[in-house]
Amino acid sequence: MSGRLVVLGLGPGAPGMLTPDATDALAQATDLVGYVTYLNRVAVRAGQVRHASDNRVELDRARLALGLAEQGRDVAVVSGGDPGVFAMASAMFEAIEVGPAAWRALDVTVLPGITAMLAAAARLGAPLGHDFCAISLSDNLKPWPVVLRRLTAAASAGFVIALYNARSRARPEQLGAALAELRGILASTTLVVFATAIGRPDESIEITTLAAADPALADMRTLVLIGSPETRLIARVGARPWLYTPRGVAA
Amino acid sequence: MSGRLVVLGLGPGAPGMLTPDATDALAQATDLVGYVTYLNRVAVRAGQVRHASDNRVELDRARLALGLAEQGRDVAVVSGGDPGVFAMASAMFEAIEVGPAAWRALDVTVLPGITAMLAAAARLGAPLGHDFCAISLSDNLKPWPVVLRRLTAAASAGFVIALYNARSRARPEQLGAALAELRGILASTTLVVFATAIGRPDESIEITTLAAADPALADMRTLVLIGSPETRLIARVGARPWLYTPRGVAA
Repeated sequence: MSGRLVVLGLGPGAPGMLTPDATDALAQATDLVGYVTYLNRVAVRAGQVRHASDNRVELDRARLALGLAEQGRDVAVVSGGDPGVFAMASAMFEAIEVGPAAWRALDVTVLPGITAMLAAAARLGAPLGHDFCAISLSDNLKPWPVVLRRLTAAASAGFVIALYNARSRARPEQLGAALAELRGILASTTLVVFATAIGRPDESIEITTLAAADPALADMRTLVLIGSPETRLIARVGARPWLYTPRGVAA
Repeated sequence: MSGRLVVLGLGPGAPGMLTPDATDALAQATDLVGYVTYLNRVAVRAGQVRHASDNRVELDRARLALGLAEQGRDVAVVSGGDPGVFAMASAMFEAIEVGPAAWRALDVTVLPGITAMLAAAARLGAPLGHDFCAISLSDNLKPWPVVLRRLTAAASAGFVIALYNARSRARPEQLGAALAELRGILASTTLVVFATAIGRPDESIEITTLAAADPALADMRTLVLIGSPETRLIARVGARPWLYTPRGVAA
């Protein structure tokens, strides 16, 4: 008898941004599997088994979850944000693809969540109001020249760019290199935002320009947004300006 | 005395994907402002005033909402999906920017939602598992050559592409032209998905290839996903295959 596997996203961390579907799946699960930082955001329920793991062991975590579901457990794999955006869902299907045939017969559900760029954008105004892209700056699983090529393509074509995995202790240099690349393409006045821990008590937002952007403002909790040539500020008295990208592009 | 303005997203339409923050804002509002199709998805509360408008009058709708908030009302502007992704939030800030100074002093909050590409991706597996972009195919507010340039840039650089506003009765031709452009860049076997009315009772999903993709499968409820060269299917017995994009790109 096989169980059930739900891959869900907690959103940014605030309870008000967790979907009811994810809340239900968390309540129903016999087993929770996830990176310890995300599992720590979920209330403990008596009788529920927690399988916490370190960062960067996504495939091991996926196989553990699939094995538990195969044994008949009701498993929730817990991601931050949206599980399909630089999170656990892809690793899960990578594991299924090369795993035992029985895993393809499992009842697998992915539940979407509020990913970091949507949460950050909402706090700022509407910077994703026009065409945009999401790029992971991590070169753990793709060559750095591919990252640079995508940055160049996106900036040259006028996309707003959301940078995930912009900076970590293990990869302190990529963000500086990415900003240097973008300075060769975009105006120095292009708006850049460092949005850190959005929706959590330690939330912070820094709005700056491409010329002034300091990579040290980012850590592994930071989503970096690069505006398009159309992205602009609306000044306010005594409050942070709103940042938005108009719906249109002039001919 | 000024009121409050919340711009919120209903997500795809299923109650299980509506955030608690949005639910609370809908309950608290004295006035709901929105496109009639979205307002019809919100339960009626006694005493709450509904201001329904037609599609494509976003600035008028924004100004109505801002005027109501200025008069002290507690206004919820209702979008589908996420309000910041090809929805009402940008129009709201466009109206504020050119409106009376008093509008900049209003208490404005944007609440994120599950945008169509996240909901569609979750149903399919994990097609947004690597770098991706979102492009509106509408040329109502941007020149068509800009759309083509962005499609070319995104496809050439290996992004998965989510097409919003892919097709409507007023714009039946753009999607075919976009697919023709992409056929000049991507392999004919590139996976293409037509995801229609995801999360609603009339939900449908068609998985096909770039060579076979028929624009007639799309209407104004359809999100079209174009895979990257890495996007792949996992076959299943007696069930729709899973679609996912691996986390890595080979050197």
